[in-house]
Amino acid sequence: MTGALCEFLDGRWHAIRAEARQRLAELPPPEEDLTTEQHRAVVLAQLQELAKAGYPEIGFPEEYGGGGDVGGSLTAFEMLGFGDLSLMVKAGVQWGLFGGAVESLGTDRHHDAHLADIMSDRLLGCFAMTELGHGSDVQHLRTTATYDPATEQFVLRTPYEHARKEYIGNAARDGRMAVVFAQLITGDEHRGVHAFLVPIRDADGNPVPGVRIADCGRKGGLNGVDNGSLWFDDYRVPREALLNRYGDVAADGTYSSPIDGDGKRFFTMLGTLIRGRISVAGAAGSATKSALTIAIRYALARRQFARPGEEPDEVVLLDYRAHQRKLLPALARTYALHFAQQELVQTLDELVGENPVERSDDRRQRELESRAAGLKALTTWHATKTIQICREACGGAGYMAASRLPRLKADTDVFTTFEGDNTVLLQLVAKGLLTGYQQHLHELGTLGMARFVTDQFMGAVVERTAARSVIERLVDAVSGQEEADFADRGWQLKLLEDREKHVLDTLARRLRPAAEEGADPFEVFNDAQDHVLRAAWVHVERVVLEAFVAAIERCPDPELVALLDQVCDLYVLSAVEADLAWFQGHGRLSASRAKGVTAAVNDLCKRLRPRIDTLVDALGVPDAAIGATRHEPERQKEQRAGDLSG
Amino acid sequence: MTGALCEFLDGRWHAIRAEARQRLAELPPPEEDLTTEQHRAVVLAQLQELAKAGYPEIGFPEEYGGGGDVGGSLTAFEMLGFGDLSLMVKAGVQWGLFGGAVESLGTDRHHDAHLADIMSDRLLGCFAMTELGHGSDVQHLRTTATYDPATEQFVLRTPYEHARKEYIGNAARDGRMAVVFAQLITGDEHRGVHAFLVPIRDADGNPVPGVRIADCGRKGGLNGVDNGSLWFDDYRVPREALLNRYGDVAADGTYSSPIDGDGKRFFTMLGTLIRGRISVAGAAGSATKSALTIAIRYALARRQFARPGEEPDEVVLLDYRAHQRKLLPALARTYALHFAQQELVQTLDELVGENPVERSDDRRQRELESRAAGLKALTTWHATKTIQICREACGGAGYMAASRLPRLKADTDVFTTFEGDNTVLLQLVAKGLLTGYQQHLHELGTLGMARFVTDQFMGAVVERTAARSVIERLVDAVSGQEEADFADRGWQLKLLEDREKHVLDTLARRLRPAAEEGADPFEVFNDAQDHVLRAAWVHVERVVLEAFVAAIERCPDPELVALLDQVCDLYVLSAVEADLAWFQGHGRLSASRAKGVTAAVNDLCKRLRPRIDTLVDALGVPDAAIGATRHEPERQKEQRAGDLSG
Repeated sequence: MTGALCEFLDGRWHAIRAEARQRLAELPPPEEDLTTEQHRAVVLAQLQELAKAGYPEIGFPEEYGGGGDVGGSLTAFEMLGFGDLSLMVKAGVQWGLFGGAVESLGTDRHHDAHLADIMSDRLLGCFAMTELGHGSDVQHLRTTATYDPATEQFVLRTPYEHARKEYIGNAARDGRMAVVFAQLITGDEHRGVHAFLVPIRDADGNPVPGVRIADCGRKGGLNGVDNGSLWFDDYRVPREALLNRYGDVAADGTYSSPIDGDGKRFFTMLGTLIRGRISVAGAAGSATKSALTIAIRYALARRQFARPGEEPDEVVLLDYRAHQRKLLPALARTYALHFAQQELVQTLDELVGENPVERSDDRRQRELESRAAGLKALTTWHATKTIQICREACGGAGYMAASRLPRLKADTDVFTTFEGDNTVLLQLVAKGLLTGYQQHLHELGTLGMARFVTDQFMGAVVERTAARSVIERLVDAVSGQEEADFADRGWQLKLLEDREKHVLDTLARRLRPAAEEGADPFEVFNDAQDHVLRAAWVHVERVVLEAFVAAIERCPDPELVALLDQVCDLYVLSAVEADLAWFQGHGRLSASRAKGVTAAVNDLCKRLRPRIDTLVDALGVPDAAIGATRHEPERQKEQRAGDLSG
Repeated sequence: MTGALCEFLDGRWHAIRAEARQRLAELPPPEEDLTTEQHRAVVLAQLQELAKAGYPEIGFPEEYGGGGDVGGSLTAFEMLGFGDLSLMVKAGVQWGLFGGAVESLGTDRHHDAHLADIMSDRLLGCFAMTELGHGSDVQHLRTTATYDPATEQFVLRTPYEHARKEYIGNAARDGRMAVVFAQLITGDEHRGVHAFLVPIRDADGNPVPGVRIADCGRKGGLNGVDNGSLWFDDYRVPREALLNRYGDVAADGTYSSPIDGDGKRFFTMLGTLIRGRISVAGAAGSATKSALTIAIRYALARRQFARPGEEPDEVVLLDYRAHQRKLLPALARTYALHFAQQELVQTLDELVGENPVERSDDRRQRELESRAAGLKALTTWHATKTIQICREACGGAGYMAASRLPRLKADTDVFTTFEGDNTVLLQLVAKGLLTGYQQHLHELGTLGMARFVTDQFMGAVVERTAARSVIERLVDAVSGQEEADFADRGWQLKLLEDREKHVLDTLARRLRPAAEEGADPFEVFNDAQDHVLRAAWVHVERVVLEAFVAAIERCPDPELVALLDQVCDLYVLSAVEADLAWFQGHGRLSASRAKGVTAAVNDLCKRLRPRIDTLVDALGVPDAAIGATRHEPERQKEQRAGDLSG
């Protein structure tokens, strides 16, 4: 059964996952006690191995020697999450961000010159977007690229300290070129943010004249990645450095673009970030699976305290309710997020090939961006929280590097704030939810949202995302009775739909005064900010449930369906339990029903306890990703057989 | 005002705090990129500096050259929490645990031979209690010490792998002796756990014959502390190695003890752990203060997104509600825990000198132990959660080692599970709450609790801990009306008292079936385990509130009182908000009152926002503990004055 479940979880890109597991099994265990420079060297060598193995080619276009398999490429990144996460991030910078930007923002001249070198390890590069003072508000970053028609060059300038490019991966040591995002100015006109492909180091590895580079130094984790800062001191680059797919400057300085509107152009260009967000969520999911596997196997082997009268036979940790409570709801949510992530990858894969400029209806693209943002936020927060729980659940053993948990914790920590700060991402999601006029919304900054929303608001409509017909059938089958079975899927779906609709409706009402004469839209928006974040959160929880339902629906094996049904129940009910104050306060659950939810969660933990081996093993975490601090059941036997007198 | 508040927070041991701040200011900034061995060497050198400065003497008895100031000693440990936490832990192992055990469990022969060397750095030692398979259940650890009257020696044995001493500080590298906890066996009789002071290394630093030592290697943090494993292979030590204050073995093997009952003796001996727990809570508090200072100062300097129409002037992060929500309730709780910790240190200080064997009424001692356990749990979890919030609130900057946040996070992580696992500690607290027969309870293992409780349970009585008369006055002044002002202190106190009483009452009812014929007490207890933990949690939250109230009561400055009143409101109301499901579900707050709590928390954040500089500066975090990644307001001005065209 474990094998069948694992294959079902693997899904369409099963072969890529299997191959990655094979590769990981052959890696030596990671060295834990490395200096930053040593770690960087190890990870660079691993990156070069990946390149040699043809790994990066999966996702690049076929005409440049790639495999053209975008979903496969994202799956491969997800699997890198089971190895050293520094390698995942460095590979993501090199092939996802840097390579991805050259591919999607550049044109033939850039592709012909560089894509083959990028896919190999011959040209390592950076994605220089973030500035010290502008991480989230990238539309207003301050680096400038001023066109000089006399020399047909762009002049890149870092106008002041807070405009320096910051935390840039591959910058401190290995990058030779960088995709630099800067405000394009030509003929005194500002044309918004554009990307430039420029050298930053010469063949000997020294910064080129006009570029200053500093090392960000030691970090909380991911120390195999060389993050650095970049300054441009009136650095001149040829006109052709502009990645000119969505905006070009002629030799005389004339600007042209296939996309009208700076805002729309900017967000189209930003579409390249979507793969980064999906990859981070994927890697966070893998790290969470590793941590849970480590902690649950430990909890199955480790014993503490004997039952009265049964000394010296001690109780297995996972038989304690408090321990089940720590780990099993987290495992259920991990399953749920896995299916949501899988669906997202599949959707992106289907969308690729459509031309974003030509696309008449870009609703799906916007929806996908919103989904990627929301899932990235929930998945990475879930990782941070769960890995912490796992660390504590292993006690001292979980603090030893040998258990792998400390590295998982340290490396994934930044996931909640890079590739889009989670708090900002949830605001983007909420923005998308509040109106049907999504393409216009992209013209607005986050803060402009309040005023816009109140103009355009049409009433919240909860749009079902996956397996629409199944979900409708389930919801329609719910009887009108209050006291539906907690395991009734239709009731669960309705409960989360209803919560989302209510939160959105009331949010819209709260934002309405922003449009009134003399109102300060910022104040109105700011006073409702917790409500905005909540709207996005409850939306994503509902979308995740629908993905779980769709997965169960397509599962061919009735035994698996029965098991997954219980896991899904635990996901929903523990999410409801975490929000019981809302459900009670809004008359959705009576006090006694609310207590029933807690009892149901406890009961599900107990019922899933005997199935825990299957559920954990099916996650398919490679042995190499699991630490060495497992308590072997054999040893435990020896201990129990032992006698106090030795 | 800041100075006055800081002095008030400093309290009775202000001088020791001031001196520590001075010393910390003179330390060089910590090196971040050290190998484990390098870090250990640095921390050992710092420990030797501390010894030279007479630092450890504060708390040791005056007859051995100490200062006899227990409260001062604990305050000094708390201040070490502002430096490298590895040093705090190594000092805690050396002088708190190892030295403390020799002092409190040993007798003159041990004191005369070793205390002076321990206070200096001439004799470094270990506290070898935890075993791989027995961290929480130390009463049942498996190492044995069998007395051999023929040679007048004890034979120390590690009977199997899980009985090895594990995670022992000072063991991997620096320790020369160890206090080893083992089951004492003499004349075939088991006498329970006793402590032995034994050499583990010779003068050259090699393990002595009979002792094997291994290095635990790299950890998630605290890598300046050399944790190791110890095995004893029929290792023979003289009879005098027994730390014989509470139990002795005569030359012929006859056992004697001033305390009847193995359980009572064990828990009296364990009383030495109380200082360790208080120290960990203190250091966790210091680390939390450092993190909040870093994150709030960052949030005051860093700006992101402009208000519509006010570009390029961007909004200060701390003006966003979501950002206030992250940091201000955490700050309020930090204040609350600070006062509770201060009260605990004061109480311990008063209790010292009383002889634990002679003490007729040890209610205060038990209460103190329970309080230390509960506060340690809540304070260390608060640290873990808050430092994580602070890291995220600083975005990428918070992930750089230069900000100090990653080290704070990594080093404090283990605090939740060492010196008593928090989950186990809360169970101890609950045990103490459930009955008045506290001395008998100590005879029982945690699991025996269920049966005992149901025999003896007398109904929950919430005992007020601090400033009883003030609290009674406040509570009595509450009108019978439902709709009391949220800022009404009496109403707040009553609300938390009432919650505690209800949770305890219902817990007792749930546990009662354990006493029934044919019941499985373990199952009954285990099914209620989440309820048990909750009972302890709500108890500690109430005790912390009372400590805050007592502090405000003794504050002489009306301006400070007005400010602290608001901070206290924010502590209470954010704690109530976190538990709104319970307050609604149990009819304590109507749905509309519940919404009012959230509104009140938001409002308090807004009102405290202009006072934030005072509140943060008064924490008195030394500049040396604050990272380098502050955004200077000056630079920000430069940025705002700048123009996009550079």
